[in-house]
This record gives sequence, C-alpha cells and structure tokens, in this order.
Amino acid sequence: MANTFGHLFRVTTWGESHGPAIGAVVDGCPPRLPLAEDDIQPELDRRAPGQSRITTQRKEADAVKLLSGVFEGLTLGTPIALHIANGDARSDDYREMRVKYRPSHADYTYDAKYGTRDFRGGGRTSARETAGRVAAGAIARKLLAHTNGVEIVAWVSKVGRLAMGTVVSDLETVTRDDVDQTIIRCPDLSVAERMIAAVEAARKDGNSLGGTITCAVRGCPPGWGEPVFDRLEADLAKAMLSLPASKGFEIGSGFAGTDLTGLEHNDPFHMEGDRVRTVTNRSGGVQGGITNGETVYFRVAFKPTATVMRSQRTVNVWHEDDELQGRGRHDPCVLPRAVPIVEAMAALVLADHALRHAALMATAGPTVPLPPRAEAPAPSRSGPG
Amino acid sequence: MANTFGHLFRVTTWGESHGPAIGAVVDGCPPRLPLAEDDIQPELDRRAPGQSRITTQRKEADAVKLLSGVFEGLTLGTPIALHIANGDARSDDYREMRVKYRPSHADYTYDAKYGTRDFRGGGRTSARETAGRVAAGAIARKLLAHTNGVEIVAWVSKVGRLAMGTVVSDLETVTRDDVDQTIIRCPDLSVAERMIAAVEAARKDGNSLGGTITCAVRGCPPGWGEPVFDRLEADLAKAMLSLPASKGFEIGSGFAGTDLTGLEHNDPFHMEGDRVRTVTNRSGGVQGGITNGETVYFRVAFKPTATVMRSQRTVNVWHEDDELQGRGRHDPCVLPRAVPIVEAMAALVLADHALRHAALMATAGPTVPLPPRAEAPAPSRSGPG
Amino acid sequence: MANTFGHLFRVTTWGESHGPAIGAVVDGCPPRLPLAEDDIQPELDRRAPGQSRITTQRKEADAVKLLSGVFEGLTLGTPIALHIANGDARSDDYREMRVKYRPSHADYTYDAKYGTRDFRGGGRTSARETAGRVAAGAIARKLLAHTNGVEIVAWVSKVGRLAMGTVVSDLETVTRDDVDQTIIRCPDLSVAERMIAAVEAARKDGNSLGGTITCAVRGCPPGWGEPVFDRLEADLAKAMLSLPASKGFEIGSGFAGTDLTGLEHNDPFHMEGDRVRTVTNRSGGVQGGITNGETVYFRVAFKPTATVMRSQRTVNVWHEDDELQGRGRHDPCVLPRAVPIVEAMAALVLADHALRHAALMATAGPTVPLPPRAEAPAPSRSGPG
Amino acid sequence: MANTFGHLFRVTTWGESHGPAIGAVVDGCPPRLPLAEDDIQPELDRRAPGQSRITTQRKEADAVKLLSGVFEGLTLGTPIALHIANGDARSDDYREMRVKYRPSHADYTYDAKYGTRDFRGGGRTSARETAGRVAAGAIARKLLAHTNGVEIVAWVSKVGRLAMGTVVSDLETVTRDDVDQTIIRCPDLSVAERMIAAVEAARKDGNSLGGTITCAVRGCPPGWGEPVFDRLEADLAKAMLSLPASKGFEIGSGFAGTDLTGLEHNDPFHMEGDRVRTVTNRSGGVQGGITNGETVYFRVAFKPTATVMRSQRTVNVWHEDDELQGRGRHDPCVLPRAVPIVEAMAALVLADHALRHAALMATAGPTVPLPPRAEAPAPSRSGPG
Repeated sequence: MANTFGHLFRVTTWGESHGPAIGAVVDGCPPRLPLAEDDIQPELDRRAPGQSRITTQRKEADAVKLLSGVFEGLTLGTPIALHIANGDARSDDYREMRVKYRPSHADYTYDAKYGTRDFRGGGRTSARETAGRVAAGAIARKLLAHTNGVEIVAWVSKVGRLAMGTVVSDLETVTRDDVDQTIIRCPDLSVAERMIAAVEAARKDGNSLGGTITCAVRGCPPGWGEPVFDRLEADLAKAMLSLPASKGFEIGSGFAGTDLTGLEHNDPFHMEGDRVRTVTNRSGGVQGGITNGETVYFRVAFKPTATVMRSQRTVNVWHEDDELQGRGRHDPCVLPRAVPIVEAMAALVLADHALRHAALMATAGPTVPLPPRAEAPAPSRSGPG
Repeated sequence: MANTFGHLFRVTTWGESHGPAIGAVVDGCPPRLPLAEDDIQPELDRRAPGQSRITTQRKEADAVKLLSGVFEGLTLGTPIALHIANGDARSDDYREMRVKYRPSHADYTYDAKYGTRDFRGGGRTSARETAGRVAAGAIARKLLAHTNGVEIVAWVSKVGRLAMGTVVSDLETVTRDDVDQTIIRCPDLSVAERMIAAVEAARKDGNSLGGTITCAVRGCPPGWGEPVFDRLEADLAKAMLSLPASKGFEIGSGFAGTDLTGLEHNDPFHMEGDRVRTVTNRSGGVQGGITNGETVYFRVAFKPTATVMRSQRTVNVWHEDDELQGRGRHDPCVLPRAVPIVEAMAALVLADHALRHAALMATAGPTVPLPPRAEAPAPSRSGPG
Repeated sequence: MANTFGHLFRVTTWGESHGPAIGAVVDGCPPRLPLAEDDIQPELDRRAPGQSRITTQRKEADAVKLLSGVFEGLTLGTPIALHIANGDARSDDYREMRVKYRPSHADYTYDAKYGTRDFRGGGRTSARETAGRVAAGAIARKLLAHTNGVEIVAWVSKVGRLAMGTVVSDLETVTRDDVDQTIIRCPDLSVAERMIAAVEAARKDGNSLGGTITCAVRGCPPGWGEPVFDRLEADLAKAMLSLPASKGFEIGSGFAGTDLTGLEHNDPFHMEGDRVRTVTNRSGGVQGGITNGETVYFRVAFKPTATVMRSQRTVNVWHEDDELQGRGRHDPCVLPRAVPIVEAMAALVLADHALRHAALMATAGPTVPLPPRAEAPAPSRSGPG
Repeated sequence: MANTFGHLFRVTTWGESHGPAIGAVVDGCPPRLPLAEDDIQPELDRRAPGQSRITTQRKEADAVKLLSGVFEGLTLGTPIALHIANGDARSDDYREMRVKYRPSHADYTYDAKYGTRDFRGGGRTSARETAGRVAAGAIARKLLAHTNGVEIVAWVSKVGRLAMGTVVSDLETVTRDDVDQTIIRCPDLSVAERMIAAVEAARKDGNSLGGTITCAVRGCPPGWGEPVFDRLEADLAKAMLSLPASKGFEIGSGFAGTDLTGLEHNDPFHMEGDRVRTVTNRSGGVQGGITNGETVYFRVAFKPTATVMRSQRTVNVWHEDDELQGRGRHDPCVLPRAVPIVEAMAALVLADHALRHAALMATAGPTVPLPPRAEAPAPSRSGPG
C-alpha cells in the first residue's frame, strides 16, 4: 500500500537504487490509448542525472522498457509494467554509508522502522525511486492530454533566496519550452541566470540550495475532485509531500492568502459567454475540493539537498557520536530535476480523478430541472453550523 | 471512498448540515480501549459554534451518541458509530442559496459535479461535516495517548497579519490549557488580545480573517510512517488540505526552510544517553516519511471565511450575472474552531500509522546483527541516482 | 476495512444486535437517483424475523431511516446513512451466553480474536448485521434497475435433503412473485410444501435445517467485471461467503460441471440477430471474470442453523468442559430469510462493477477497427503457457 | 485494483502471455525474512508446463528473478519485484485466435469490455498470469511457515467422475511428498492411476477433463480473519474464484453439509489439555469468519479445459456464425498444475490476515478479566434478530 498511489488510475513503484532495476506498474489505464516507450522516455530524460553542469555528474541512461499492457501501439486496459535497468554501480566500498547515519537523510529512520536497509546509494530512499513515478506520470499525462486536453506545466520559482516575481498571467501562459530554455528551469531568464550562478557557487562550496516549484494545470473541466477526504487539493498535497525533500504545499493564494480579508480574497463569479468564470483565482481552481474550470495551480517547497561535501556531526549504527565527511558527486540543488517529478505526480492525481468523475457522470440520473424563476427571493437563514 | 480516510484505522463521515443528523463510523479501532461519550464530547464542545463572542452566534448542542462498538466501557474491535443530531433549523427560506452561487464557496462546483445539491446551510460542504471528524479523532487521540503516550496540541499562530512570534521551545511546551486560556486559542497572550480585537473589528465590518494553525505531535517513537507514497507528512498534508478553507501545509522548516543552505538546514544527529536525537529539528520529526523520535510539527493555512456580510458580485443557477447580499450570522474567523479539527485529523493520521507500524513490527524477522567494527572505512561511492 | 465492501459503490455496516441501533453507510452512489425509505423498507420486511410460522417468532419492526445523502427525493452523490433502531431487548439475564461458547457460533473465535465481545444476542456476529446489508443492497438494486435494467431474483432451491428439480429455464423466468408465494420462498410449489413441513418438523424437534439458494441476475450487458483478482465471480463468491452460515458458492455449472468433459461443457457461441449469444450457459454468464450478456447465476450453501433447542457439549470461558441447554426462540431454517440477503449482496457486487466499468468506458480511446477479412487463416500456434 | 490482491500483504501481477515478460510486485512483506530466488523457483517449477506427459508439452523455463526488496538474503520491507521472462514464442500466425472467439474462453468478453485484446496465446487471460501469483505466494508461504509455523497442502481430489474417497484424517496428514508422488497430484495412489489414465484418454480424444482440488491449512492460531465482509472464508472464496477455470468453492462441510441437521452438523467444543478444540470440524476451521485453531480446509471446482482439439461452433469478430478447429498442444486437465496455484492463493490470503491480526493484537488494550464464577446461570433471552 505504501508503494501504491491512486484509486482508479493506480501506480505501484518498486526498486532500490543499486539493485538490478527499478520500475512501476500502472493499473487502471483505460484501453485504446496510443502509447509507446517514446511517450515516456522524454519525461525520464528531463529527470535524469547528468543533464547539465548544475546537476549531479553521474550519468544514467534511464532507458524505460514497456513489458506489458500495450499491444500494437495501444493500451490494453491491463497493467502496464515499466522497467528501468540500473547502471553498473561502481564496486566502491559502502562502509561509511553502512555505519554512519547521514544527517537529514532517511538512513536512521529506515533502520528504526525496518531494522535493516539497503545502504548502497540510499536504497529505496534514493530519489532514484521517482524515475518510476515519472514514467507512470507520462502515461497519465498522455491520457489527460488525449482525453481531456489537460496541460500541466511546472517551473522553478525560487532557488535559495532568489524568487521569481510572480505574475498571475504566468499561470496561464508559461510553456514547457519557456521552462526548458535554461538549465535551472525558471522561465524568468534574468532570475534564472542568478539562480544558476547561486547553484554553481553552492556546489563549489560543497553546499546545497532548496527552493520552490510552481505548477499550473490548465484545462480541467468543472467537477473533478471529491468532497471531504479526497478533495483534489488534498490528493495533490499528499502527492507533493510524498516527494523526497519536499516540506510544503500550498494551493491558490496559499499561506500568503492568510494576510487578506474575506472581501479581498473571495473570487467573484461572472459569466464569460456561456461559461461560469471567476474574476480572480485565489482559490487555485478548486472550491470545496472540486475544480471550477479555472487553472489549478500550486507551489511545492523543497529543502536544500541533505547531501553536502563537508564534514558533519552525526551518530553511527553503534549509537555513538561520530563524524561524516561528504565525498563524491551530488546534486547541489534538486529543483531543476524535480520539475518533471512534480508534473508527473500532478498528472497521476488528475488522471485518477478524471476516471473517478467519469464513473459518476456515466451513471448519474437525468438532469434536475432548475428552480422556477417566479419565486421571490427571501432572507437567508441560519441553523446548524 | 471520498468520505473514508485511513488504511487500518478508518473513519467514514456522512451527513448534510440540515438533514436529520451527521455522523461518522470508525472501523479498525483495536479492542479493549476504554471509551465513553465523555471522551468525545469535550472535543466536540471545543469545535461547537456559539462558544464565544468571536465565533458564530448559532447555538448547537452537538451531543454525540455512541451507537455501536463499545460494550461495558471498552471498545469491541467492531465499528464505532457516532451520531450527532442536527438542531431544528429555522424554517427560513433558502431561496437565495438555492439560486445564487456564493463566491469562494462550493455551491457552483457541487452543481458542476453532481448536478444537484442540498443548498440548505451548505449541505455536505458545510464545515459542520467536521464534527464527525472531531468525534472520530477523539477516539484516535485516546488510543494514541493510551497506547503510546502521544500528545497532540495545536494553536492559532497567525490571524490576518498578526503572527505569533515563533519560539522553537513552544513546540515542546505549549499545553492545551495554554491554548484555551483565550477565545482565539493563541497561547501568546499579548498577540491573542490583538487577534481578538482584529476578529471583532472584522465582524463589525461584515468582513472576515484567515490565519494559520501550528500543531505539535509529541512522543511518537522512531519508525512510524511509510516510505514512498504514504509518507507520514504526505498523509498529514492530505488530512489538512482535506479541511474546509485550508490552502497550505508545511512541515518542519517548510517554505521558510528554502531560504537556507544545506549546511544550515541539516539536523545533525547526536546521542542523548542511549537515545538518538537531532540537535535541531528542521525536519519536523520526519525523515524520508518516517518519524525520528523528535516532535512532529506542521502549520496549516486557512483562508479568510468566504461568508461575508456584504454585497458581492456572482452568478446564479440560470447562468446570469447577479449580486449576493450576505445576511445573518457567520464566523468572522474560523481559526479558533479549527484548532480541535486540526488536532483530530492529526490524531487520525497517527493512529492509522501506529497500527500499520504495529503490524510490521509484530511480524518482522529477528534482529539483524550490526556490522563488525573491525572493517576499515573506505571512500563513499556513486552510482545510479 | 473488514466492515466495508466495494470499490466505487461502497457500503460500511455497523452495529451490535442489542446496542441502540444498527446501520450502514453507502458511499459512491451516483447522484440524481430517485430514492426514498419506501424503496428500502420492503426489502427489510422480507428479511425481518417473525414474518411466518417457520421463522423465529421474535418481532422486530426494522424500520429504516435515511439520515443523509438524499434531498428532495433524489440522491445527492454524498454518503447515504441508513439507521435501523434495535427494539427494546428484554431484560433477561445473558449469563449463559456470556460464559459458555455456543457450538458452531462465533463466540469462541471472537473471544480469541478480540479478547472481548458483546455476548447479548451474538452482538456483531448476529445475523441482524445483515439488515444493514439489505438496506444498502436495496439502493444498489434500484440503481441497477434504473440505470441498466438489471433484475436480480433469488430463491430457495434446497432445504435439508429436499432439492427443487433444476430446470434451466427457471433461471430466465422465475419472478419475485413466484418466489414469495410460499413462506419457504421456493418457486416449485410441490417441493415448497414438503420443505415447509420439514422445517416445521425440525422446529418441533428443537433441531434445524440448512439448504441452498439459487440466484439469477438478468440483463447485465457484456463487459462487466474485471480480469485477474476482481473477477465478477470472485467478488460474488466473497460476497456470499461473507454471509453468516454460508459454506459454499458455485457459479454456472459449478461442482457438478466437473463431471463433464470439455466438449460437453463448453458453451458454443452463435449469433442471435446482431447479438452474440451462447447456445448453453454453463459458464453462468461470465467468462474470464467478465459478463458475456447471458444470465449470471450461482448457488450458495447455508449450513443448518447452529442454534438448536437441545443440550450440547461445549466449553466455557474458564476453559472447562461444560454443557449448553438451548432455550427460547430460534430460526429452524435461515433459508427463507436469506433470500433477500443474497439478492442484496449480489446487487452490491453488480452496482460496484457497473460503476467500475462505466469509468473505463467513459475514458477509453476510439474504437479499434476490425482486422481486414482478406487475410487467410493460418494454423494456431503455441508458446508460453 | 483489479490486478492487486490483499490489504496489508499485497500482490500486483502484470503481463501478457506473449509479451516480453510477466511478473508480480509484493508490497507489505515484513522486513528481515530470509528470502532468495531458490525459495520461489521450486513453486514455479510445480506450476510449469511440460512437466509430465499429462500436461501441455510446451516447455517454459519460468525462471524467476528478484529485482528488488531483498538485500543480503533478507527482505527489506520494501516492494519485492518478481520478473519471469517469456520464452521466445513461435512465429506462428495468430490469425485464427484474432478473428474467432474460442468457446468458454474470455476472448469475446475481453473484446466486449476493452474493445481490444492481445490475442496471442490468450494475452492477459492466459493461465500464464498465475505464474506471478505462484511466485508471490511462495513468499507468503515462507512468511507463514517462518513466523507462524503454518503449513499449506493441496491435492487433486477429483478428476472428471473419479473422486478420491475422502477420509477426514487426510486433512491432517497428507504431505506434499504424498501429493507429488504421482503426476496427477492425487495422494490416493489407486485413484491416481485411474485419473492419469482418464486424462490420457481425454487427450487422445482431443477432449479435456475438470475436477476438484482440496486444500488444507494447518497450524493457524485462533483469531485470524475478520468479521463481516472480510471473513477468512470470504477472502479464500474470492481468491479461489479469481483463478482461471474455477467454478466453485466450499469450506468445511460445504454443499454436502446442507444435507445434515443442526444437531448433526454442529461441532461441539471440548478441552484438550489447555487448548479449546472441536470434536468434529465441519466448520472447516472458521467460525464467524475467524479461525478457531482447527485445520482450515476447502475445495475448489475447476471446469474441464476449454481448449479442445476438435471442431466447435462459434462466432467471429465480424459477428458471423463460424467454426473453430482446435489445433496444437493443450492441457487436457489443469488440475495437477492448479495444485501449486491454489496453495499460493491460500498463502496470500493467510499472510494478509496474519498481518492484519498482528496489527490488532499489538495495539489492543489489557486483558479483560473473566466474569466471576459466583453468579448463577439464568435463562437465555431473546430480542432483536
């Protein structure tokens, strides 16, 4: 269960960083969707290490293989197995990772929970696990685009203390091309240059940076999501907080919205042709857990990479105070590589809710007539609350 | 599904605001836990409307009845049905709520999803639904206290632009008594007074305020939580974003932590007697989704109440531009009443993970011996990432 | 979980036999289905005790109340809470049930599992729990009839050694009126009279009888069900074996079909107008877990009632050999009252699969063209198996 | 979901018969269980085709690879990915399977559901899918044996009209060695010879046979299972009816038990030392869905293989009457190869319930004292039912 996500469109990931392979199984994808490895590989390539001078210099092909669920170019409606071989890991000695708990990593908590762990490269706790999510998310993304015309674009909006000035229209207009024109994946070019410089400085210093990613989901019809526990924003929050290094999620006006009064914050409705629209979109495209047809947007906070190339105080497996010396290669900032991961998780949430809503709509009773206009309005009331 | 939460300790809520009753069913509570209505009623009383001059003046008894699952003062291990009768709603005319969509409420999205809604008092979208969660959470809280000594305390840390100065030690020391000494439920008395004044001013103005709640969970043993999708922070995020009016969640250092470098942010381990501790707790008590034994703490953002006593632009069910005049009584700030709701959802998440971890521990194999000390350390390595 | 059934159309039951009430919550029912208590009460009346001289003489009104999920006569798409008050139980002493384990009841196993139990009337193990299922099943039945024209009819086909001669056409033609014309609910009147006499004789003797129920589900379109684990027959089998006193399930040709050879057993396809039909229906309407459009039919075995009015050897809670003297009133044969319960569980399974299939169909890609006719047939092949 | 089974110990299978591979992912296996490919391969070998003259002559190595979840010989508590490559299928033309629906196979129903199918060798509907179950079941079996000393043995008890005379003691004493001493896997040697002859005759005739498998699960402690919907027998029934070609399930006395009266059928309790035992075991080791410590046993009916080497009437994909000529190699009787599959599914059900029960036990409150002996017995009572 801990490794499965979704109710109707479901993904299960498996694999340790230095085992023979990692992968995912997608169950519940509808039949007759065109699908090939070529739909998935570009998403993996965006996540892959070694793609620029500001990510880790490790090189992994991350070549995905489709082992089931597709026949003659179309999905079958059966489980889609995705397989990504792990490269030949160097025959280094892992002694230090075995015996010392890296600060702010999951080495200690895994030992506390399981009483064992695959310490090589972090094992299951490695961000490598997210490759399976990205592969599965590529299928969800294709389904959403194909069936509903939904588009998902995420970008780096803050690195360390360097924040991109937020313009509301960005949420509607930023494209993947805009995002990918710099290696930091921030569509504001002037900020992007400063972000890149900051990451390079952090790397030289053996240090690391965090930041935030903003994600916009465009084209959801009104009605997706569920009330109460499976609100769309609740499932998005879970998806994002399930990512390694993420520490926060906010939708629409988020934490900043708490500065406003109700009159300032409310999104008035108005008609735009025959479409119900909101004048502003502080709600972030969801009201009561359900989409209202406006762009769904949210931000995710990622802490600075825990791996640093410096000496740090820690304890070892014999429960003694000890010291850990960072070595080797690392990602001084996970943000650029996290962009496709955030998009993938958003796609998985939305595909699941698209299917859930489809089930409801296809079985609902006939339309209920609107109330007659003749009745005169009367004062509102109050009661249980 | 949308109305059920949890994997082993599960709650299902039901009920519309103005139907005969609302309630919840708790399934998976272990047997032989002492439980009575008196364990639950005080939590409901903290959530109830009309408890102070800064909450809505509606009066609801919210008296809970235990209809099953308890026998001779102990839980049976069978489902616990909780029933809360709705008061006699006034025989007002609901015409306006029926035909006009309240801005930033879920009236429009429910119509878009279901093609029907119980418009009386918001029906299922009413915050009244959370009474069922609070009742269920009271059982989870008792289980956690009884079995594991876990304590959960939440408080109002920000109202509008008035923020309580955060002191790390608060996370360890604030008690429910501290919280409940003012009607705003902020343990910092000087800020509390200003918050109360701000809420009263907003009410007089027919306006409303939002804010944040901080929650601390003390006493979790290391090892609770799951890797990958069901990380403890992911389930907490989902729980909190499933609450009406919530727009953000952050754990540990959260969004502010993105300003720091890795060296500044990492929590070094050290031994405290025979206990592995961290020197700082920017991780918020979780690493890789699993508790490390430190206090788990998080913040939740609540937008300003959407109901305001002023005229607002909107559209009606005939899809025409229209105007809505706020009337009657409302909560100018949901924060004080949201405190017990946040605690309840936190308790539900933790009880579920306590049971999930118990299943694992009770069936795991024998302890794995520690690696021998004799081996010499060797350089760390790199590989797939 | 143990008390919840279904994936999209879900029911959770709660309640002990002698607590204040029992009930169920139905989540996932689509909106805008006409629904009232009058749709549910007749099903409960068919299950109620005291309805004839061959069932227990206890009288329970079993009046159902709809507490949520319905507004102005239509379902809302929100959870439907069903509440059935328990009658005032006599103030008898339950001492004997408390201290002695009734043979072939669940008293001992509940103590073994939970270390406690509500011994009054069997508590949660009482067949009274099935009232909640019947109420929920009435909603599923209405949805199936309303949306898909599906009809479900069950009847008593065997009591003790008295079996109704099975005629294939019965599966297509027996109606509820046929079933309800006798108190034993066997549509074959000559056998019915002998069954009634046998039950009366068993009652006089303080003994009890078992038997089988046959159930036919007519009108399912081809395509309902799922491959692999959630085959339609697998979910039906689970539903039926979850009933108190049931010991067996068979679909289509069932156990008797093992006497046949493949050539005798296979159901040849043929065209009937533009409909693909099978000449025979030994498959029972499902192939590979999915409906083929033929009538789905199955049989369920119920053991003789464990409660008998005679002295039986047993052990007590102090783990000593003891003796139990049956007393009071009992059902000498559960079969007539089990008919509506079997129908209810079948309806729950089918409604769930109807929704699951609807989700798939509403999101599947465009139709795949049929293969061209020009290609010449070639020999079949063999490979992995 | 359709391809996932279990609540805490979960397996997801994937793969089509003629794709590159098939496999399974096991999630929820506790950590520190010794596990290697050698624990799994022997179970797969028992299921493999080509193992004797009465099974299909196809040869598949079915070599399993463990791709994750195991490190240094012990499970990690993370998902265990199992991979079984498909052999090189012959480059035959599949034209006939593509265009004609094989009677009593799932070709037509898959087309009806999905509008597409991988017709090569049956694709996902092939019994080859069960190899993934057998591999997963081997892990569950090891866990049960290792942690609880539970033993699972199944055997062929009927082939066509040839039934093994059932002796109660078989349920306690038959071993895997007894089962595997003949290729038909019936431990009664005299019947086994006749069964083998019957299968050979059927094969020569291009025909096929069905039969039943009996399975005994020994050593379950009292208390496993759940009340209401997830009764142990309900989950076993679902597991067995989810197998290809299965048409029936019965536990304990099953269908034959309906011939008995309550007095004949009830299992009296008695003390055997300090253990509560039953004198007879018509209940099949479960009462109210929960184990009572006696051997759990059940029977499964398998229809005769649908593939026959004869001409059969059918329809084609253009919805015309047509004829299908059976060709090639087939299993004239699936029973011998179904023995390890039945055992695997039983192991999956029991491992899941073992974990679920462990969660409950580890969190239950203190023991409830037994009632005082002093109270005098009083008459039993009656009430709601």
